[in-house]
Amino acid sequence: MTFDTTPALPRGFRCASRNVGLKPDAKDLALFVSDVDCVAAAVFTRNQFPGAPVILGRETIRGGVLRAIVVNSKVSNVATGATGVVFARRMAEATAAEVGTTANKVLVSSTGVIGVPLPIEKIELGIKGIAAELQGDPMPGAYGIMTTDTHPKALSVRVGPATITWIAKGAGMIEPNMATMLVYIFTDARFDAWTLDAMLRRAVDVSFNMLSIDTDTSTSDTCALLANGLAGDVDQAEFEAALTSGCIRMAETIARDGEGATHLIRVCVRGAHAPGEARTIAKSVVNSPLVKTMVAGADPNVGRLLMAIGKCFDATIDRSKTDAWINGHEVVRGGVRGSFDDAVVRTALGDEVVTIEIALGVGEAEATAFGCDLTQGYIDENAAYYSS
Amino acid sequence: MTFDTTPALPRGFRCASRNVGLKPDAKDLALFVSDVDCVAAAVFTRNQFPGAPVILGRETIRGGVLRAIVVNSKVSNVATGATGVVFARRMAEATAAEVGTTANKVLVSSTGVIGVPLPIEKIELGIKGIAAELQGDPMPGAYGIMTTDTHPKALSVRVGPATITWIAKGAGMIEPNMATMLVYIFTDARFDAWTLDAMLRRAVDVSFNMLSIDTDTSTSDTCALLANGLAGDVDQAEFEAALTSGCIRMAETIARDGEGATHLIRVCVRGAHAPGEARTIAKSVVNSPLVKTMVAGADPNVGRLLMAIGKCFDATIDRSKTDAWINGHEVVRGGVRGSFDDAVVRTALGDEVVTIEIALGVGEAEATAFGCDLTQGYIDENAAYYSS
Repeated sequence: MTFDTTPALPRGFRCASRNVGLKPDAKDLALFVSDVDCVAAAVFTRNQFPGAPVILGRETIRGGVLRAIVVNSKVSNVATGATGVVFARRMAEATAAEVGTTANKVLVSSTGVIGVPLPIEKIELGIKGIAAELQGDPMPGAYGIMTTDTHPKALSVRVGPATITWIAKGAGMIEPNMATMLVYIFTDARFDAWTLDAMLRRAVDVSFNMLSIDTDTSTSDTCALLANGLAGDVDQAEFEAALTSGCIRMAETIARDGEGATHLIRVCVRGAHAPGEARTIAKSVVNSPLVKTMVAGADPNVGRLLMAIGKCFDATIDRSKTDAWINGHEVVRGGVRGSFDDAVVRTALGDEVVTIEIALGVGEAEATAFGCDLTQGYIDENAAYYSS
Repeated sequence: MTFDTTPALPRGFRCASRNVGLKPDAKDLALFVSDVDCVAAAVFTRNQFPGAPVILGRETIRGGVLRAIVVNSKVSNVATGATGVVFARRMAEATAAEVGTTANKVLVSSTGVIGVPLPIEKIELGIKGIAAELQGDPMPGAYGIMTTDTHPKALSVRVGPATITWIAKGAGMIEPNMATMLVYIFTDARFDAWTLDAMLRRAVDVSFNMLSIDTDTSTSDTCALLANGLAGDVDQAEFEAALTSGCIRMAETIARDGEGATHLIRVCVRGAHAPGEARTIAKSVVNSPLVKTMVAGADPNVGRLLMAIGKCFDATIDRSKTDAWINGHEVVRGGVRGSFDDAVVRTALGDEVVTIEIALGVGEAEATAFGCDLTQGYIDENAAYYSS
């Protein structure tokens, strides 16, 4: 599958972004609009302190129809009580008025610091007139939703006559569950709401839900898929394959840009007793601080892989059948450290992409998790995020 | 309760340590011996790749009687297969011969790098003649079991006519489960094996099992309690209170010396629906990288507390009843960021001990977890642990 990383939005979609005074200079407000109503599906964080936009978004998506997405960065509108929900509604209303639709067709997201009141007046003022700036290049939208990201994240792929375009942000507080960071997926293919929702959930399950930067599940995670139908019907199997593949690719892009990350870590578990166990073990390894620092330091301390597998207390493990490889080099054989050349594995750990394969030999289930290494950069970023 | 941090071993216990060539210069072999057989209890790691000494130790402790503990540092004898277990037995046999007992009364521990063969000949040679060096000061033993610890860890308390003395090591790969790091507790009080085991399990449950440096559960965690009875009977309630209190104190000592740690973090959850939920939430907060870096940076980004509570998806949470304090300063009220002075909370976060209290208002259960902040020191230590 060939992805385009300097993509265009699918036909009928346009976006714009502005600085409305939440950040000193950078873009802090983004708008995505379709010329016509879209069939839409979305999944949100499972965190029990969801942001006001998530509370509102769950209500909005029940209608199954979206026309626009409005997003501000810098302030997340989380832990802001009833006022926060009122402010999220005001963002939807201001956007609806600006683009000529109703508030129940506008999905709102906010990302940034938790527990700080949303500067709603600045946002309302900033929304006024932004429709005149809408255009088909997705990059202004991708820039407008960034927080600690080091680069904007966008991706496109063609499926028959249709296009799918992903726009995402996310670099920390990432262990999505039921959803992910802010990821917006636009397509001009035509699907009914039920099919769209089912495809999105299956794709998220093997991509963003297997992504973890730091085990911390954000209060604002949102992933939405909008289909405006302007390209007509496309083959569903082909579409779903492209959707899933692009979601995995975007999950890897986010992991790669994890706060302070210098390596993408992929953990592929196979031969597990059950799918849930494969997922648990893959996540345990990708999240282990000692595995992450091993990769950061390119230090072949491979016993840590066994530690991280073994701390899944309830998983089925047969020690004598557990094997592991790092970028193709066998490092564990039958639950015991393999006889490998330290220098070779050290070099392999130096690659920007480190793939850890684990074969459990106790069943047929498999899962892949995506993460990154742990470095000083993560700590620098997060020890003074609020103040800076 | 008054603890002595420059303690003596209880009567009838002696220890010694040596360099036997596993480390360049530092002590790497420690021996603890009682003059008479001890009633003994022990708990071990739940990691599914336990070290050879843990596999052997589970068998040894079934007898309920110990006379000696032998420990080497630098190499953990984990992921070493059947040979590893043979080598652990040889350590027990060499020790039994040296101190005049049988191998089934010798508990063996090894701590250090995973997956490297144990240099058993060096250890056997090193055990020879060590009995002549045994004496009542616990510090040689505490030094002999250190790995990345920055200081030896020992503690004593008097209970009526008896003494309890803790000797411990541990600074990373610490989220014990069913047990902890290497913690040896010696007493001259007299108890039967059943009572001793029950008291140890209850004490470990609220202390070492609530300790987490980095969420990584070691393959070697061991906590043993030896009672030689030389001081006769003591009041059980008084003894158990002292035992529990000392285990908590030692858990805090270990957290404080967590790799790279500059703060002890205590998370006290109350008003939870059930004890398991209180424990889960306390651990979630103490383990959150974003909470840990907030403390490291003394940055009052208190919304992260709500994030870390909220990512316990299955816990009973009433957002409007959730309150939180940092060192006595209210930072969350009714699920919303409280109105506090940033500068005051920043100063509070600068204290070496940061106590986070969380009141959930949905029940009566409570739990306290112990951890530390996350700094560059942890990464430096673990990115090159194997190589250095």
